[in-house]
Amino acid sequence: MKHNKGVLTAPAAVGDPLSAVDTPSLVLDLDSFEFNLNLMAKRCRQNGVDLRPHAKSHKSVEIARRQIAAGAVGICCQKLSEAYPFAEAGIEDIFVTNEFVGEKKVAMAIDLARRCQLTLCVDHPSQVVALGAAARQAKVRLRLMVEVDIGAKRCGVTSYTALLELVECIREFNGSLMFVGLQAFHGGAQHIKGWSERHEAVLHSNEIVTSYLLRLKDAGIDCPVVSGSGTGTAEFDLSSGIFTEIQPGSYVFLDGHYGSNEWSGLPQFRHSLFVLSTAMSSNGESRTVFDFGLKGVSVDSGVPKILPEQGGQSLIVTRVNDEHCVVESQSLSDLPQLGKKLLFVPGHCDPTVNLYQQIVCFRNGVVESIWDIDARGLSY
Amino acid sequence: MKHNKGVLTAPAAVGDPLSAVDTPSLVLDLDSFEFNLNLMAKRCRQNGVDLRPHAKSHKSVEIARRQIAAGAVGICCQKLSEAYPFAEAGIEDIFVTNEFVGEKKVAMAIDLARRCQLTLCVDHPSQVVALGAAARQAKVRLRLMVEVDIGAKRCGVTSYTALLELVECIREFNGSLMFVGLQAFHGGAQHIKGWSERHEAVLHSNEIVTSYLLRLKDAGIDCPVVSGSGTGTAEFDLSSGIFTEIQPGSYVFLDGHYGSNEWSGLPQFRHSLFVLSTAMSSNGESRTVFDFGLKGVSVDSGVPKILPEQGGQSLIVTRVNDEHCVVESQSLSDLPQLGKKLLFVPGHCDPTVNLYQQIVCFRNGVVESIWDIDARGLSY
Repeated sequence: MKHNKGVLTAPAAVGDPLSAVDTPSLVLDLDSFEFNLNLMAKRCRQNGVDLRPHAKSHKSVEIARRQIAAGAVGICCQKLSEAYPFAEAGIEDIFVTNEFVGEKKVAMAIDLARRCQLTLCVDHPSQVVALGAAARQAKVRLRLMVEVDIGAKRCGVTSYTALLELVECIREFNGSLMFVGLQAFHGGAQHIKGWSERHEAVLHSNEIVTSYLLRLKDAGIDCPVVSGSGTGTAEFDLSSGIFTEIQPGSYVFLDGHYGSNEWSGLPQFRHSLFVLSTAMSSNGESRTVFDFGLKGVSVDSGVPKILPEQGGQSLIVTRVNDEHCVVESQSLSDLPQLGKKLLFVPGHCDPTVNLYQQIVCFRNGVVESIWDIDARGLSY
Repeated sequence: MKHNKGVLTAPAAVGDPLSAVDTPSLVLDLDSFEFNLNLMAKRCRQNGVDLRPHAKSHKSVEIARRQIAAGAVGICCQKLSEAYPFAEAGIEDIFVTNEFVGEKKVAMAIDLARRCQLTLCVDHPSQVVALGAAARQAKVRLRLMVEVDIGAKRCGVTSYTALLELVECIREFNGSLMFVGLQAFHGGAQHIKGWSERHEAVLHSNEIVTSYLLRLKDAGIDCPVVSGSGTGTAEFDLSSGIFTEIQPGSYVFLDGHYGSNEWSGLPQFRHSLFVLSTAMSSNGESRTVFDFGLKGVSVDSGVPKILPEQGGQSLIVTRVNDEHCVVESQSLSDLPQLGKKLLFVPGHCDPTVNLYQQIVCFRNGVVESIWDIDARGLSY
């Protein structure tokens, strides 16, 4: 915020009570966040699988550092530009899990590869040829993963022939490009609500990955890395013996969408990320309007929720406009009064985090630190 | 973008062909934009109604300056913090069309009132008392509008008694606070698709405003300003004789949601705002994936659309994930090839603009200027 003139400063200062934080603000409950951070790291250790968390969820160097301190081998990013703040902050091992096309992107990839150990994702020979030619000329070496479609019906090759053709194409740039493995991610499976239906989808995806791996083996092609999985399917993928690393992102926050999944009896992740908002208007009878809206929360996966301990048993969000969130209650006495501050669980953490410049971190109701969302808006 | 090191620079340079602009980018067709700018200004002039465009749609000082050059009397903002970059850029007359509560907000309002002619919005006596006490102490004078609920069921008073009580309360701070009129906005009516159904809703709202105005007159209370309306209902509100000023925002861009309204036979606003995106993955059979997603477009009012001249007769957007937009076609020959750039009309312009730092402005396929989105993310 370049317009800070003593008023538009940070929404809070370290040591402030949460009740003094300006609104709307994105806030993080550090106890729950650390619980999540450690739980996923422990599960990966127990299963002998590398943890490479996806930074697209948090876009924050501070969180990436904590993930690595807890045992992560590196991070994923979804876009080349998103990787920059992490590389510049000294995160050494970055996998950009998404395809890209065009001269400017290739130039960005070459530049980025000089700043960290960079792994890239391809699913078409033309991408490989462009990267190979640029890497050879720039005398850099690029690590490439081939994305395979394991049921997401989005990116990725869909046949053995296409996979083998890509690996061959990568080998033609030997010395400049290196095939390191498969990107096998099924985004849609993460949010299948029923536990057994989600497990079923994972088993089907696993069959596809396994058959690709067998073909590579038959062709004598070494495939050291199989990367994929997410917060929703990690509990299955960690024990499948297929993945050498998993790339969950949302587990540090657990948003509303993931919160509505059915989980197993294992200890589960906790909601740690909230939008703190103030009641700015109320008709005193049936509704109270809070001071955040579509510019403070993404509603692509549903409207924000109010936790039971915040009154969520009787309060529901009925509408979200640009800068308004309408809360209704069947009980007049539960309706929040003007000035009341509440925590709202965002439906989808990734695009919500992208709306803010900072996360205000609190513990036991007191602001402990304020972290930048360094890669906010970096979608190039 | 503080991480610019020669690569993460602006997505384009003046003089670039549109085809060279990095993606995803927010782009503006200047011919259509200027057509929209002048059309609304002309209609307001013809009807003798002031135009006070809503800057929450564009958040851009450059656009506000052009609106004022075309005849606007000032601008609206939706948040106090949003008003700052405009006030600092010399926009003199700003109306913040939304209630707020809390010490920090009141302090921000007082500070802002020293930087421009500021008008604020209230719907509860406690807001008036807080502003009155602060204005008196700071020796500034605040102009207040009382919001009345004309059918939106969101903010605003809902009875004559409440309105009169508020005006009385404002008068108690005579010299520090001044009642200037009514804020009468029905957001929901803007997007009623059918022309006659929308007209019907406006007529109903007009009855409510008229009855409030009569009560004020009966009570001997002067009400110089009645402000409201938007892009969807302006054609009715301009000729109703009720509004002294209108506050449309989206008309400069015409997003997909407004584009799907039924309009009268009058000349209509044109789509001027697009997301420019590159095809980054394609299975070559049924789908092509473009390089933008929920972090580059808001889907609260539907997925982005492809105009007929861009292939939109056979291409449809079937899915939008965080950084992916899946386009499908029933005709294989129409499926965009890898590297193809397309323009997408965002479903809802306001939250989409808020995702970008700049708007790349083009005319006849060439970049003519690049404007900052100065108030991006300013929702405090």
